[in-house]
Amino acid sequence: MLRVPFDDLANTVEQALIRLGLTPTRAALSARLTAETDRDGVRTHGIARLPRFAEMVRNGSVNPLAEPEPVTSFGALERWTGHRGPGNLAAHAAMSRAIELAKTHGLGAVALGDTAHWQRGGTYGWQAADAGLAAMCWTNTLPNLPPWGAMSPALGNNPLILAIPDAANPIVLDIAMSQFSYGTLASYRERGAQLPVPGGYDESGHLTTDPAAIERTQRALPIGFWKGSGLSFALDVLAAMLSGGRAAYQLPLDPLQETGLSQIFLAIAPTSVATIDELSTIANGAIDFLHAATPIDPTHPPHYPGEGTLRTREENLRLGVPVDEAQYQRVLDLAK
Amino acid sequence: MLRVPFDDLANTVEQALIRLGLTPTRAALSARLTAETDRDGVRTHGIARLPRFAEMVRNGSVNPLAEPEPVTSFGALERWTGHRGPGNLAAHAAMSRAIELAKTHGLGAVALGDTAHWQRGGTYGWQAADAGLAAMCWTNTLPNLPPWGAMSPALGNNPLILAIPDAANPIVLDIAMSQFSYGTLASYRERGAQLPVPGGYDESGHLTTDPAAIERTQRALPIGFWKGSGLSFALDVLAAMLSGGRAAYQLPLDPLQETGLSQIFLAIAPTSVATIDELSTIANGAIDFLHAATPIDPTHPPHYPGEGTLRTREENLRLGVPVDEAQYQRVLDLAK
Repeated sequence: MLRVPFDDLANTVEQALIRLGLTPTRAALSARLTAETDRDGVRTHGIARLPRFAEMVRNGSVNPLAEPEPVTSFGALERWTGHRGPGNLAAHAAMSRAIELAKTHGLGAVALGDTAHWQRGGTYGWQAADAGLAAMCWTNTLPNLPPWGAMSPALGNNPLILAIPDAANPIVLDIAMSQFSYGTLASYRERGAQLPVPGGYDESGHLTTDPAAIERTQRALPIGFWKGSGLSFALDVLAAMLSGGRAAYQLPLDPLQETGLSQIFLAIAPTSVATIDELSTIANGAIDFLHAATPIDPTHPPHYPGEGTLRTREENLRLGVPVDEAQYQRVLDLAK
Repeated sequence: MLRVPFDDLANTVEQALIRLGLTPTRAALSARLTAETDRDGVRTHGIARLPRFAEMVRNGSVNPLAEPEPVTSFGALERWTGHRGPGNLAAHAAMSRAIELAKTHGLGAVALGDTAHWQRGGTYGWQAADAGLAAMCWTNTLPNLPPWGAMSPALGNNPLILAIPDAANPIVLDIAMSQFSYGTLASYRERGAQLPVPGGYDESGHLTTDPAAIERTQRALPIGFWKGSGLSFALDVLAAMLSGGRAAYQLPLDPLQETGLSQIFLAIAPTSVATIDELSTIANGAIDFLHAATPIDPTHPPHYPGEGTLRTREENLRLGVPVDEAQYQRVLDLAK
């Protein structure tokens, strides 16, 4: 494990993106969003994904020069297309616009179609929370999850993000609709570890905590069994309907061709109906109550979504951002 | 099991509500919403809840004459108070207003504070879908669920509803954030049955499918373990912030005093950015794809949220609405 100063990390990613064909200004923003993902400790979705992005530029799935633009609008609701440009830039632009709409209308939404993978979904939740707005956003994905009652995949794992602003304690939830991603399953398997809770089905059709068995069956579990299955389906259909983009059934099965996605960015301006003090009182009261619940393990009290991120961020800005050496080398190679 | 003609059922409930102090017009609407819940086969949340409602009117938790009203508004976002009147009437008024706002602004939201139990959450999803709008709504509840990592309750089970309109195949998801409600646990226990999937923890701290063990520990499981725990927390805080009402930490622990809740009603007008044909094509494509997934049990293929409701509805309108005789007798007694 290496620690790289944040600016060095962002600059290296920026150079790599320029070499992949992004314009300098857009490369700088995309690189910042990627480096911030590692800075916040979400290392599965930062520079770890850059080689895949590079491959998708090379195979034509992502057009590095394409910029998102509005297609149609009605009041506080807009439909945009990403034109299969870099997904984090399109998502950032869509959330920026949703924030503007919410400042005008109290709430606002951008439905973004034909876009590429947004990398870390939480990025756009933090974007809203940092601007003092609440947000809900989600993306569909290629079908990688069996619906409840089925053995073959027909749902995406469709990450859902919910963000609530607060100067001291922003709440940012970022959850996929599968209990564990395939990346997480692989990481448990490589460590020879069992999952902490059942994550899917084994070959004999039983729930299992064995990551390798789930990799073999490809029968990962939706959160809450039939509940997450239904939620994932509804999120997919609504995103495709509002964006005019593709639903899971129209998406390619190869992750290296996973583009043309549909995403929703909804922003809400709580300060349009309340003072910041009122909002803070509620957030802090709820957090104190959560923390006061009797812990199972006193060294791991319950925590709220996003708790600890500001501390991780501060530490990584001070000491350098932790990166896997081999992964960082791949970024350096792309930047050469 | 008895089958009662829909109109007889609605009229009987209406008489009961008039005797409980509602004005005739409001009693008629509240009764219709209750009878429609049984008509749609959601028998846990229809007339089964009427005795509890009567008790809450008697103990002063619900004011039968109180009507919801707007408190403040900003563009497409409004804050309302329910004044602790009948919860289904306040929720219905809030969703009606959200639908109006969405017709004007593309999307609209009403945050409703100080309201009573809304009974079936799906009611307000169907309300939007029947009007051709998509909707998302949720309510907080008293803390009845331990957060992930804790043994004592500090979260509500906060039902979340997502509705997508389609003339032939409306999609209406209605899920609480606990894997099983206490009502469901009791029903499994009474039948001597095990839960189909783990639903909580037993006395030794292990996941269990034994409903009685979970009733003893009161350690029910959030959907998706830490994921549903985080989602439930975020829904609670956002509802309280936007409505200016109470979060779970401010709610009474006694279900017979569970009032002063916070709810969000968000409506989206898909036809403001798309034609009905475009929307139908997406919904039908997604549904066909879901149905084509390889079933585990060929007699139970995967289904989408709300699937079959229109059929159940038609059947119960034709043959009469199935009611439990003892439950129906209680309604008849209240109506006397």
